[in-house]
Amino acid sequence: MDISQKERAELLGTAAALADAAGVAILPYFRSGGLTAANKAGQGFDPVTEADRAAERAMREILAERRPDDAILGEEYGREEGTSGLTWVLDPIDGTRGFLSGTPTWGVLIAVGGTEGPVLGVIDQPYTRERFTGGLGVAEWTGPHGGGTLATRGTTTLDDAILFTTFPEVGSAEERAAFDRVAAEVKLTRYGMDCYAYALLAAGQIDIVVEAGLHPYDIQGPQAVIEAAGGIVTDWTGGPAHMGGRVVAAANADLHARALAQLQDAQ
Amino acid sequence: MDISQKERAELLGTAAALADAAGVAILPYFRSGGLTAANKAGQGFDPVTEADRAAERAMREILAERRPDDAILGEEYGREEGTSGLTWVLDPIDGTRGFLSGTPTWGVLIAVGGTEGPVLGVIDQPYTRERFTGGLGVAEWTGPHGGGTLATRGTTTLDDAILFTTFPEVGSAEERAAFDRVAAEVKLTRYGMDCYAYALLAAGQIDIVVEAGLHPYDIQGPQAVIEAAGGIVTDWTGGPAHMGGRVVAAANADLHARALAQLQDAQ
Repeated sequence: MDISQKERAELLGTAAALADAAGVAILPYFRSGGLTAANKAGQGFDPVTEADRAAERAMREILAERRPDDAILGEEYGREEGTSGLTWVLDPIDGTRGFLSGTPTWGVLIAVGGTEGPVLGVIDQPYTRERFTGGLGVAEWTGPHGGGTLATRGTTTLDDAILFTTFPEVGSAEERAAFDRVAAEVKLTRYGMDCYAYALLAAGQIDIVVEAGLHPYDIQGPQAVIEAAGGIVTDWTGGPAHMGGRVVAAANADLHARALAQLQDAQ
Repeated sequence: MDISQKERAELLGTAAALADAAGVAILPYFRSGGLTAANKAGQGFDPVTEADRAAERAMREILAERRPDDAILGEEYGREEGTSGLTWVLDPIDGTRGFLSGTPTWGVLIAVGGTEGPVLGVIDQPYTRERFTGGLGVAEWTGPHGGGTLATRGTTTLDDAILFTTFPEVGSAEERAAFDRVAAEVKLTRYGMDCYAYALLAAGQIDIVVEAGLHPYDIQGPQAVIEAAGGIVTDWTGGPAHMGGRVVAAANADLHARALAQLQDAQ
């Protein structure tokens, strides 16, 4: 996708404005004790908060003003067509279970791109004031004690790797078995970080994230951030990840190949 | 334990100074990429970082100056006897696995008390600038966006409860089965938060924490904070928790009894 320097600056500025607005909309609800959790799926536990909806509305208002020709795909309010060839993919609160539990490991996920995937992504954690931005020549993080350049690390063997997932809650028995094959090989497996795990991978803190059952808005922001930091994000067969489903993200190509070898036979 | 008003203020001030000093010692190491992980136990994965040791040394220096008559029990440097009847119980980094993974859910744990348990505790997260303090008439939290009073919530049935643990990594098969009996009854189970889960319980965000294999320094800080906020912390038989082992913390007495009923038969 050919994007001019001026357009790049505009997209980066818009993504930052979206993250800012989402944080302002969400924070009054976080740990407020007055949350309502609608059951969106009609089964299981899939909370949707007022905060989720308020944040997506705030982001759509900004896009209507600044990027009226772009399409939008949002978790809460669905698809809105555009004419520019660019689509903004929004998950106002990734990790609603974590949000409802008060943990600061949920995030605002923002991506923009074309049919072949995201060209820019943001993972934002408003409570801790951490932001991870990747794409269009940028790979950077900011946080409460400073910031820096995002770069994945050079771990090349599974027995030196730290693996994260939102499992064991998520995934079929077959998916769980595939995950366990990777987990059996690594140094350390950790759970429950939602999108924050992708940010840690891009920041060179962990090595692999394996998940299943993702939507496009769950992965496009993280994918752009991780790719900009030098990592690899695909589905479990090595194909494109940006439409969601089963996803493996790794710090580098060697490690990605080793994880994929444990995952690719999953039915 | 009879503690004068002046002594209470001195203990609270000392606890805050310890948490401040630990944070200053630890933060340069967090996400620094230069961590060394010694294998303390000689088996499994039990990382000890330079940060852990530096923080405990910093806290011991403060105690030597301000509280020379008190005893100390620290995770890294063991026991130092005293004459006052008070012991400071220190875990400079609770959640070293999370620390090594870059997640901001580890914490500095500080407690002070006598042989019957802690009278004051602090859970501090230096990276997010969150502090939870409970005991001696205080039950308060401070964070990056403000602060307030700690109070556990009124959930009384397991099917409305949110359960946390550092499982599935920790615990015997028997302990895991007991945990699973509680997990089967609750609304939501989450993993991997280390001591941060206890802070969330005290702050009224979650309802139950179940763990096993704890040391005294893992639980005394959280126990004091949770008790000051209105919660209950015992072992799995309903006895004292401050020596560690198998621990259940709950938001209130009703919920504690319901969780205990699922745990107390564990061999």
